[in-house]
Amino acid sequence: MANSNRPTTDIRHVYRGTFVHSTQQAPLQILEDALLGVDTEGKIAFIGKGAELDRLSKTFGFSPPDITQLEQHEFFMPGMVDTHIHASQYSYAGTALDMPLLQWLNTYTFPVESRFKDLGFAHRVYTQVVKRTLRNGTTTACYFATIHTDASLLLGQIANDFGQRALVGKVCMDRNNSVKHYKETNQESQEETCRFIAELLGKKYPLVKPVVTPRFAPSCTGVLLGQLGEIAKNNNLHIQSHISENAEEVKLVNELFPESESYTDVYHKYNLLTDKTVMAHGCYLSDEELALFRETGASLSHCLCLHVWIDLTHPVCVCGAASDVAGGYSASMLDAVRRALDSSKVLTIQDPEHETLSFEEVFRLATLGGSQALSLDDQTGNFEVGKDFDALRVNVAAPGGPIDLIQCDGLKCATQHLLYVYLSSLAGDDRNIVEVFVAGRKVVPFTE
Amino acid sequence: MANSNRPTTDIRHVYRGTFVHSTQQAPLQILEDALLGVDTEGKIAFIGKGAELDRLSKTFGFSPPDITQLEQHEFFMPGMVDTHIHASQYSYAGTALDMPLLQWLNTYTFPVESRFKDLGFAHRVYTQVVKRTLRNGTTTACYFATIHTDASLLLGQIANDFGQRALVGKVCMDRNNSVKHYKETNQESQEETCRFIAELLGKKYPLVKPVVTPRFAPSCTGVLLGQLGEIAKNNNLHIQSHISENAEEVKLVNELFPESESYTDVYHKYNLLTDKTVMAHGCYLSDEELALFRETGASLSHCLCLHVWIDLTHPVCVCGAASDVAGGYSASMLDAVRRALDSSKVLTIQDPEHETLSFEEVFRLATLGGSQALSLDDQTGNFEVGKDFDALRVNVAAPGGPIDLIQCDGLKCATQHLLYVYLSSLAGDDRNIVEVFVAGRKVVPFTE
Ligand SMILES: [Zn+2]
Ligand SMILES: [Zn+2]
Repeated sequence: MANSNRPTTDIRHVYRGTFVHSTQQAPLQILEDALLGVDTEGKIAFIGKGAELDRLSKTFGFSPPDITQLEQHEFFMPGMVDTHIHASQYSYAGTALDMPLLQWLNTYTFPVESRFKDLGFAHRVYTQVVKRTLRNGTTTACYFATIHTDASLLLGQIANDFGQRALVGKVCMDRNNSVKHYKETNQESQEETCRFIAELLGKKYPLVKPVVTPRFAPSCTGVLLGQLGEIAKNNNLHIQSHISENAEEVKLVNELFPESESYTDVYHKYNLLTDKTVMAHGCYLSDEELALFRETGASLSHCLCLHVWIDLTHPVCVCGAASDVAGGYSASMLDAVRRALDSSKVLTIQDPEHETLSFEEVFRLATLGGSQALSLDDQTGNFEVGKDFDALRVNVAAPGGPIDLIQCDGLKCATQHLLYVYLSSLAGDDRNIVEVFVAGRKVVPFTE
Repeated sequence: MANSNRPTTDIRHVYRGTFVHSTQQAPLQILEDALLGVDTEGKIAFIGKGAELDRLSKTFGFSPPDITQLEQHEFFMPGMVDTHIHASQYSYAGTALDMPLLQWLNTYTFPVESRFKDLGFAHRVYTQVVKRTLRNGTTTACYFATIHTDASLLLGQIANDFGQRALVGKVCMDRNNSVKHYKETNQESQEETCRFIAELLGKKYPLVKPVVTPRFAPSCTGVLLGQLGEIAKNNNLHIQSHISENAEEVKLVNELFPESESYTDVYHKYNLLTDKTVMAHGCYLSDEELALFRETGASLSHCLCLHVWIDLTHPVCVCGAASDVAGGYSASMLDAVRRALDSSKVLTIQDPEHETLSFEEVFRLATLGGSQALSLDDQTGNFEVGKDFDALRVNVAAPGGPIDLIQCDGLKCATQHLLYVYLSSLAGDDRNIVEVFVAGRKVVPFTE
């Protein structure tokens, strides 16, 4: 009974219903009554129309009774990609955000991060971060951990255990800060980075990889930055850091690296700008600096400093959305998306020339855009055949959830309307995300 | 056994634990281990220290076993005051917000509002609005309904039934809009406003009152505005409307009312600016217009156009926070507060001269500030003796809620830290609001 067209991998699941995602051409594509098949490796084997059921079931060898049919108020969207999240700062997210950045680092960030020397503490916090972000629909996260190699390895293990796709960075910083127990020498930073990378790669986690992570230029000597650029190059690794978040920091970088032309030039000089680099913020980048991003293929992870996005309407850089815990208030990408929309609206009130971001564009940033910013768009970001099935099953009318579906009298309530309620009003929260899949595996609800 | 100091009203409930509120002097006052007594009329009879238990129990005649003790992760805060919410627009909150205001009114607002002629539809929507806002901690709401008198009366009845404090406005608009079934003549508008007021006052609801509600100057003839000013004056009523939300609208008002010096002057001329007036938005008010607000005692309800707040640091106007459904995304004041903080932060990035709003200030706007904007601060807004007990019992660690309390190992977790987690990170949502009281009555969880 072999079918010559039949692919080599077997189908494990088939879903039927509404699928919503972004493509290169359209920020929001709505596929109603679609059929999507996931193979035994967790990859999308096909996506077609409900009307093609007969053909698809023959070609891919599944039987119609095995199809999971979405309910009336449900749809699938791609899992969200958080391009910048400090796992180690989750415990004090949102505290004292009115404090200037550099002061904030010494008052909150470094003392809290120093606690991750304690693996028990690290285990508690990291478990909660991974669970909380997964439950909120973050299927891919690009994490900053701390300077502690073992705790950072633990974060990788926890992400792997719960099934989250993750880039994990052991933070590097060899310039003195004022906190006694939270510093490393240049030698420590370099050696521990090598150990971190070797051990994490040695685990052969399918979805969790190391990312080279200088905290940011003010925390690193040029020597260290050079070493990290080397390490990333030799191992073909991702790189992440911060850039140009505020004016005070930009000034400091100019003082610390007088030989460089700009903040961006510092990273460029040390080979830290590659097509696998993602830099957070970038609020004060000049046109020359943005050109360097374009040239190298490096990406920006945007948090609240949205006015840069105006410049990005010409195709300079790929950019993604980020929750920016603890700079942000919440570990939820839905909140990040909502805030991006709000911020853009405020900027339009201030300056009518500013083009307000549409929710479709922000939706793309949170999904496909994020995967592109992390150079993971060959694996995730939307529902393309061959990518992993990273998906959220959303029930707009989830019982006990935050949305009232007033205008929906039975069939009068079109899927499209629902979708707009959920996505554009963004009234939804984790209560509406009823299932989360990463690489085909159902990771939420948690099995334990 | 009579105590000569004993007040005339009996105590019905006594609560012990942490209370957080704003006062005229301090945007955030934290009272730890406080004792608060509520009398049989729902008013705050006393608020003192736990150490004063003996004296208080003798003076007020209650016995210590009757005290309700808050749990470790709980505190009370004042119920929130939403100074501007379109109850009739709840069903499409957040839809197509990128459309210009005047076009949006004709495309969404008016067609949806016309459906409230149907009392069954009105009943469904208004019930959900009142329940949803109560559950999210809005104990006082200033509502726009629609032009329909009976449906507006129904909103008043539903608010009364669920125990919410509310100002309810039947909307007035006698200038043609382009929607066929949603308009009224000048005579209809005037007569129906009088009927609405008479019937609503006739119900003698203790917490629900009418508010005179011209939609906004572009929707009203000068004749109608004059009549409404008269009606408000004769009945000593509250007044609400919109003002100066965007540049296009300001231009239109200048064309429609060429005899007036400014948008604000239009309302002033028709006696619609009083100390019981609250105007939504006010994004483009001149210094002269703000002076008129100050002179008349009228208030502003601020939504997203926060740059006005800068001007308000000199004591021009009282202002409150608002969810601004459907202009806003959500009926939750917690979301409104979070968005106000975010917006302010964005403005600071744009313009370092802009002073970022602290969360304490926004907390005050959402509680005491709102009650002042609505001239209801003699009844609600904070925990002062003599005011009604309008309160939210917040459990930061509510099971199934959105907050992880990582750093809290037993007693190490100070109340103040909890509070900051909830208020400044604003990571909380309705799941953390475990009980809601209005005038001493527990209205959430719902009794049915
Ligand atoms: Zn960061
Ligand atoms: Zn409004």
